[in-house]
Amino acid sequence: SASQDLDLEILKTVIEQLDADRIRENLRELSKEPHLATSPRDEALVQLLLQRWQDPESGLDSARTAEYEVLLSFPSEEQPNRVDVVNSTGAILFSCRHSEENLTGEQGGPNVVPPYAAYAPPGTPQGPLVYANQGSEEDFKELQNKGVKLQDSIVLTRYGGVGRGAKAVNAAKYGVIGVLVYTDPKDINDGKSLPNETFPHSWCLPPSGVERGSYFEYFGDPLTPYLPATPSSFRLNSDNASGFPPIPIQPIGFEDAQVLLCNLGGNLAPADWQGGLGCDYNLGPGFRSNGTFPEDSQVNVSVHNRLELRNSSNVLGIIRGAVEPDRYVLYGNHRDSWVHGAVDPSTGTAVLLELSRVLGTLLKKGTWRPRRSIVFASWGAEEFGLIGSTEFTEISAPGSSGLSIYDNWIRYYNRSSSVYGLVPSVGTLGAGSDYAPFIHFLGISSMDIAYTYDRSKTSARIYPTYHTAFDTFDYVNKFLDPGFTSHQAVARTAGSVLLRLSDSLFLPLNVSDYSETLRSFLQAAENLRVPLEQHNISLGPLVTAVEKFEGAATSLNQRIATLQKGTSDPLQVRMINDQLMLLERTFLNSQAFPEERYYSHVLWAPRTGSVATFPGLSNAYSQAENTGHEPAAWAEVQRQLSIVVAALEGAAATLRPVADL
Amino acid sequence: SASQDLDLEILKTVIEQLDADRIRENLRELSKEPHLATSPRDEALVQLLLQRWQDPESGLDSARTAEYEVLLSFPSEEQPNRVDVVNSTGAILFSCRHSEENLTGEQGGPNVVPPYAAYAPPGTPQGPLVYANQGSEEDFKELQNKGVKLQDSIVLTRYGGVGRGAKAVNAAKYGVIGVLVYTDPKDINDGKSLPNETFPHSWCLPPSGVERGSYFEYFGDPLTPYLPATPSSFRLNSDNASGFPPIPIQPIGFEDAQVLLCNLGGNLAPADWQGGLGCDYNLGPGFRSNGTFPEDSQVNVSVHNRLELRNSSNVLGIIRGAVEPDRYVLYGNHRDSWVHGAVDPSTGTAVLLELSRVLGTLLKKGTWRPRRSIVFASWGAEEFGLIGSTEFTEISAPGSSGLSIYDNWIRYYNRSSSVYGLVPSVGTLGAGSDYAPFIHFLGISSMDIAYTYDRSKTSARIYPTYHTAFDTFDYVNKFLDPGFTSHQAVARTAGSVLLRLSDSLFLPLNVSDYSETLRSFLQAAENLRVPLEQHNISLGPLVTAVEKFEGAATSLNQRIATLQKGTSDPLQVRMINDQLMLLERTFLNSQAFPEERYYSHVLWAPRTGSVATFPGLSNAYSQAENTGHEPAAWAEVQRQLSIVVAALEGAAATLRPVADL
Ligand SMILES: [Ca+2]
Ligand SMILES: [Ca+2]
Ligand SMILES: [Zn+2]
Ligand SMILES: [Zn+2]
Ligand SMILES: [Zn+2]
Ligand SMILES: [Zn+2]
Repeated sequence: SASQDLDLEILKTVIEQLDADRIRENLRELSKEPHLATSPRDEALVQLLLQRWQDPESGLDSARTAEYEVLLSFPSEEQPNRVDVVNSTGAILFSCRHSEENLTGEQGGPNVVPPYAAYAPPGTPQGPLVYANQGSEEDFKELQNKGVKLQDSIVLTRYGGVGRGAKAVNAAKYGVIGVLVYTDPKDINDGKSLPNETFPHSWCLPPSGVERGSYFEYFGDPLTPYLPATPSSFRLNSDNASGFPPIPIQPIGFEDAQVLLCNLGGNLAPADWQGGLGCDYNLGPGFRSNGTFPEDSQVNVSVHNRLELRNSSNVLGIIRGAVEPDRYVLYGNHRDSWVHGAVDPSTGTAVLLELSRVLGTLLKKGTWRPRRSIVFASWGAEEFGLIGSTEFTEISAPGSSGLSIYDNWIRYYNRSSSVYGLVPSVGTLGAGSDYAPFIHFLGISSMDIAYTYDRSKTSARIYPTYHTAFDTFDYVNKFLDPGFTSHQAVARTAGSVLLRLSDSLFLPLNVSDYSETLRSFLQAAENLRVPLEQHNISLGPLVTAVEKFEGAATSLNQRIATLQKGTSDPLQVRMINDQLMLLERTFLNSQAFPEERYYSHVLWAPRTGSVATFPGLSNAYSQAENTGHEPAAWAEVQRQLSIVVAALEGAAATLRPVADL
Repeated sequence: SASQDLDLEILKTVIEQLDADRIRENLRELSKEPHLATSPRDEALVQLLLQRWQDPESGLDSARTAEYEVLLSFPSEEQPNRVDVVNSTGAILFSCRHSEENLTGEQGGPNVVPPYAAYAPPGTPQGPLVYANQGSEEDFKELQNKGVKLQDSIVLTRYGGVGRGAKAVNAAKYGVIGVLVYTDPKDINDGKSLPNETFPHSWCLPPSGVERGSYFEYFGDPLTPYLPATPSSFRLNSDNASGFPPIPIQPIGFEDAQVLLCNLGGNLAPADWQGGLGCDYNLGPGFRSNGTFPEDSQVNVSVHNRLELRNSSNVLGIIRGAVEPDRYVLYGNHRDSWVHGAVDPSTGTAVLLELSRVLGTLLKKGTWRPRRSIVFASWGAEEFGLIGSTEFTEISAPGSSGLSIYDNWIRYYNRSSSVYGLVPSVGTLGAGSDYAPFIHFLGISSMDIAYTYDRSKTSARIYPTYHTAFDTFDYVNKFLDPGFTSHQAVARTAGSVLLRLSDSLFLPLNVSDYSETLRSFLQAAENLRVPLEQHNISLGPLVTAVEKFEGAATSLNQRIATLQKGTSDPLQVRMINDQLMLLERTFLNSQAFPEERYYSHVLWAPRTGSVATFPGLSNAYSQAENTGHEPAAWAEVQRQLSIVVAALEGAAATLRPVADL
C-alpha cells in the first residue's frame, strides 16, 4: 500500500540472518585467485555474480551485465620493469626485485601482476638519485631552496601526502626525469620492518611488499570523458588524453628502498622527512662516499608499461520497489583487485552478496518487498580509476532524477561522541572509490560505510598490505577479522541503512545536517572577512544565504514532524521525499570548476586552499594570495562566492514548501 | 483527490468566460505609454501586475516580484546618434532622421526612445558606403569576390537573413568600421513604401519607421552568465564581457535608406539583393557620379550609446495545485517593450491577464483548483536579450526538477493538415523569446502559442511595425484584430493548453512525437553515410539508438493506454508523468557545445550546418568539410555523434518501465 513504511520486524530478521560464516566463505571464493580488472578470473567473477543474482532461487527480480571498452595500462610480460643502480661504465651494481617474495605460496605465478604504476609512460631514464620525501609541491620547493639539483635526476618518494600521480606531475615541473615510490615502514608498520615482525607473522607489510595503483589524475575511462565507453563511442587519441603521469614512475618495496636511501649522499633530510628504514635519510643527489655504491653511480628506471583497450563489465541486480519503483537505492562495491584483493575489494563484495542473499530470501518467501527499488552493483576496473561506476553515470545522466542514495564502503573511521561513546564517524567523501562520480558528477547523496582498525593503536596510513600481493584471504582470516564479526557488523549496518532508505515512508535524511556543514564553512570564511573586504568582496550575501538555508531546513523538519503525526497523502509524502532527495542536486554547478573533470559539487569538490571553507572559495582565495593579488584572481574569488550563494539560495528554495513563491 | 483529472465542463466554462473586450481594455492600458525596460512606466506596470495578482479578489494564492541588477544599453539623451552624408571638406550634406515621424501623436515625447542598436559600442566611424545585402558571411564573401573594397568602409545592410548582432560581427571581420541597417519595404510591406499606403492608412510600416533591437549575441544579463544578477553577484567587468557588436551600428528608416542606397555607385548588386526602394541597388563603394552627393562623399555614423546597470523586475503569480503542488505549469510573457509595444509584448500580457482573471474567479468561487500548480510570469528586460527569464532560470537551476512546461507566445505559423485542414503549426523553438533558457539551458518542455497573419496573403518578414514607435494600441485595434477575436482565440487556445497541462491525470505529452523528429534527423544523417564512412565513422549506433527510442516510446504509450483503462494508483501515474516530464531533460549535455553559452539541448541547439540533422553533428560535419578534412575536425564529428547516441540511449532508458534493467 502507498503508506508502506519500515517494518522493524523485517529489519530485525534481516540483521539476525546475516551470517558471518557465509561472509567468510564468500570472501574465500572471491579472493581465491588474483582478479585484476579484465583478467580471466575477473571475468569468471562477473559470471559468478550474474548467476547468483539471476538464479530464480536468489529472489532478485533481474540481473544483467554492462560492458565497456576502456583503456587500461599493464606492464609488459616480455620486458619487466626494472630499477637498477649502475656505475659510470653502465654496469649494474644492484637491482630491485621484480616481484614480491613468495612468502605464502600465493605471491608467485603468472596471475600476480608485478608491481607497477598504472598509466606511467614507458621510458628508461637514468640519473643521480635524490630523496624527495612525499613528492609534494612543497617538498620540491624545499629541495630547490636547499640547492639540491633536480634537473635530470631520479627522485625517490614515499607514499602519502599527495596522490600517486601528483608525485610525477610535481617532479616533472622541476626537470626530474624518473620517479620511484615506496611505502615507508614508519607510515604503515608502526616502524616494524623485519621479516619475522611482518606478514605472515603479523598484519604488517613484508619488506618486499609493493603498493600498486593507478597514477591517472582523473577518474573514468581516460579516452571517453563525459561519454559512456561503448565500443562505438568517440575516443580521444591516447596522445590527446590528459591526466597521465608525464614521466616514468615505478613503485618498489621498502627492502629495496632501504638500499637506495641509506646509501644516499648530500645533506641530511629534515626531521619530518626521516622514516623507519633504520638509517639517516640524506637528500642526495647521488650516493655517499663511504657507502655500498661508487659516488658517481646512478639509478636507471626502466618502465615498459603498455596501454590496452579492454572489455570491463559491471554487474547489476535489482529488487523492484513495491510502492515507488522509480526511486532507487543503489548499493555497490567494485570487483576488480590488484592481486587477490581480499580486503580491497572482496570484503565489500562478500558482505554485499550476503545481504543480497538474505533480502532475496525474504522476497522469495513473499514476506517482504521494499517500498523503493534496490540496485546491487559490482563495478569493474575501479583500481584503474573508478572506471566502471563512472561509465555507468555517463550513460544514465542527466535524466536520472530517480537515483537517490549510493551506498558503498571501503574506508573506516570512528569518532567518540559525548552522548553515544564510540560511533561511526561521518566524514566527507573525496574521490576514494566508486561513489565519486555519483556525488561529484550527478549530485546523488552517497555514503561509504566501513569498519576499520583502532586508530589509537596504530598510526598505519592504511591497512599495511593494501594493493600488494599479501592482501589475501589468510591475511584477513588470521589478522584482520578471524571471526568475521567485523564483517558481520558492517553487513548489519549496511543492511539497516539499506532497509531504512528503501522502506521508510519518509526518507531518513536530515537536511539540518547540511546546516552544520554550512555553518562551519561560513565560520572558516569569516576568517577571510578582512582581506576580502579590502578587495570589496562582502560576505553579507553568504551569511544571509546560510541563514535562509538553516531556516528552510528547520521548517522542513517541522513539516515532516507534523505530517508524520497525521494521515499521509502519498503524493504529499512523495513531494517531501523529492525535496530531501533533490537537495544534493542543487549543490551542483557545472560552471564552477571548468578545469576539474566531473567535479561540480560546490561543497565537496577538492579543496587545495588552506582555509576550511567552500572549496571554490578557498582555492580561489589561496590563488589570489599566491599570485600577488592580481585583479583577475580576486574576480575569481568573487565569482566563486557568488556561485556558492546562488547554490545555497537554490538549496533553500528546494526545501521551502512547494508552490511557495 | 489523487485521481483528479481534467474536467471538460470547467474547460468549457473557462473558454466561454474569456472575454475579447476585456482583452482589448487590458491592451489599451498596457500599451497606453512607452514602457521600455526599467523605465518609470515599466515599473508602474510591475505594480499593476503585482496588484492584480495580489488582490484577494483575484483568487491567486500569492504574487511577488523578483528584482535583478542588469546591464542595459541606452542612447545618450544629450548626444543623439547620427547618420550623416559628409563631403570631402566635412560639411554635412544630408542627415538621417533622429526619430520617427509623429504621425499619430504617439511618436513624440521624451519617453519614445530614439531608434538605436542596443549594446552597439560608441564611436564615430566615417568612410565610403557599401551595400552589403543582409550582412551575412556569404554576402561579405561575395563582395570580396567582386573586388569591392570593404576595409574602412561603412556598410548598409537590410534586416533579415542573419541576426542583428551577426551583421556587425561579420562586417568587422572584413575591416568594415561602421554598419547601418534598415527594413526594406519589399521584406515587410509587400513593396509598399508611400506615406498614404502605410500606417496610419494601412498596417504597413511608414517610411520613417525603424526597428530597434538588441545586438547582444548571447542572452541573459551580459555581466552574469550562469549566475543570477542579484545586486551582490559577481559581475564581469564590461570590458571582459563578450557578445557585444565589435563596431558601431545604427538602424535607420527606409526613407533615409533610400536616399543613401539609390545614390550608390559601383556595380549593380545581384538580383536577389534588390529591394523595394524604387531604384537599382548598386554595391558602392561610394556614391554615383550623377547623383545627389559628390562622388567622394562619405557616410559618418555617430553612436553614443551607454551601458547602464539598471534594476529590472519579474512578476510572478501562483495558483497552488490541489494534488501535485510540486509540479508546475509556467505561463509567461515579457512586459517590457521598445516603445508602446502594443503587439510586442502587450497582446500576450493582455491575454495572460484575462486568463489569470478567469481562472482566479473560479478559484475564488471554490469551483476549481488545478491538479498541478500554475505560475504566471511577467518577465522584464526581454528586449535586451531575454534577461528576466534567463536570470530566473539561473536562480532555480539545477534542482528544479519540478517545472514542467513553459508556455509562452509570440510567433505565429499555420500549417495545412490533410486530415484537419488549417491547424496550428508546431515548429521548433529557437531563441526568439523568454522560453529560450527554459528549453535550452534547463531542458524544460516549452511551447510558444500564437496567432498570426495569413502568410498566403503577404510576404512580410514579421508584422511591419515590429519594434517601432508605430506598434500602438490603435495599430492593433484598427488593423490587426479589430474585434479582438484573434486575441480571444489565442486566449482560448492557451487556456485549453494550460488546463490540460495542469489538470490532466496523465500529462498530455506524446513522446512518439519525438520519434518523428529523430527519424527525420536520422534520414538527413543518412545522406552523410558515405563521407562519414570514409572517415571511419559509422551511423550504426545512431540507427540502433533511434530504433530503441521508437520502441520505448511506443511501449510507453501502450502502458499509458492500459493504465488509463484500469484504476490508477496515484504513485504509478506520477511515475509515468515523471517519465514524460523528464524526457526533455535527457537531451541536455553540458559538454556538447562548450562555446555556446547556455545551449545544451542536443536536438535544439542552433544549427549552422547545412544538413538538417542533429545540430552538433551537422555543424561539426560542415566544419570538417570546410576546414579541408583535418583529423581533429573529423574527431569532433565522431564526438558529436557519440553525444547524440548517448543522449538517445538515455532518453530510451528514461521511457522504459522503471526498475527495468
Ligand atoms: Ca567515459
Ligand atoms: Ca545572469
Ligand atoms: Zn578498492
Ligand atoms: Zn584499491
Ligand atoms: Zn517580444
Ligand atoms: Zn521584441
